[in-house]
Amino acid sequence: RELHYESANAVLVPPLNFAMVAPGVYRSGHPNKHNFPFMRKLGLKVIVQMSEEPYAPELEEFLLGENIRRIPYKIEGNKEPFIEIDEEVITSALINILDSRNHPLLIHCAKGKHRIGCLIGCLRKIQNWSMTSIFDEYRRFAGSKVLADQEFIEIFSAKVPYSLEHKPIWL
Amino acid sequence: RELHYESANAVLVPPLNFAMVAPGVYRSGHPNKHNFPFMRKLGLKVIVQMSEEPYAPELEEFLLGENIRRIPYKIEGNKEPFIEIDEEVITSALINILDSRNHPLLIHCAKGKHRIGCLIGCLRKIQNWSMTSIFDEYRRFAGSKVLADQEFIEIFSAKVPYSLEHKPIWL
Repeated sequence: RELHYESANAVLVPPLNFAMVAPGVYRSGHPNKHNFPFMRKLGLKVIVQMSEEPYAPELEEFLLGENIRRIPYKIEGNKEPFIEIDEEVITSALINILDSRNHPLLIHCAKGKHRIGCLIGCLRKIQNWSMTSIFDEYRRFAGSKVLADQEFIEIFSAKVPYSLEHKPIWL
Repeated sequence: RELHYESANAVLVPPLNFAMVAPGVYRSGHPNKHNFPFMRKLGLKVIVQMSEEPYAPELEEFLLGENIRRIPYKIEGNKEPFIEIDEEVITSALINILDSRNHPLLIHCAKGKHRIGCLIGCLRKIQNWSMTSIFDEYRRFAGSKVLADQEFIEIFSAKVPYSLEHKPIWL
């Protein structure tokens, strides 16, 4: 059956802290039902979840109806000094981001600030951005600087494999 | 003759406050020579200038060498209560942004905050984004809120014509 989510006034509501990262890659906080008409326009193929919060049934239904595949990484953010993001999870998420067959793709955590900020910082390192511009982008979303996240980005040195055939054109 | 701008360590430096707006559309502050290797990777067709600062000869040369067309709007930003951005200039810039034949395109002002923030706010209205999300994006770049700019965005109601044949797919 076909699902309809258009609202009366048709104003489009992007998810919290929504932004474009690169052609075919979007970032945001946790989507909710108000974001469905907006998300539908993105024509998403994949949604990458970087948070522990379970999906609401309406979100599950939306993904099913739109044929959007969900890749779940149920991780917590950096919380000094005890919890640290797992480098292997970031590497695995980056492998999915660097495969253009998954595009258009939305990556989200709870607020679209810290966990996604770490992930995108590591992506920018692969893109060879200067650390100044990486931290500037991180702080644009996170507001104040979180040293644990910046350190994570700076130290991240995993080799992320990607296929020459399926890598995005911007890499 | 062919121009080379690669630096020794090959770190890519995006222009100040660089970000992606939508597929084929980028925003930033005034580019300088350190940004040339980064800009080359974007494969730009057009650069839209929203500032009075003259281009340095090296920037002119870069645009020529890369075959990037420059569309100059030499405007000042909102400075209450005397200077106000011209709605006609914003409309004209939007017409260029909404023509996919100009993509990929970079729009810049001096710092990539206020004038570009106004322009992108008006673009988001055309895209039918909620005012909350428009102001949130504006403030992400501008830091604190500038009421004159937010008012400009809220009041903007010009009809921006675009061709059905050449409009971007995301509109």
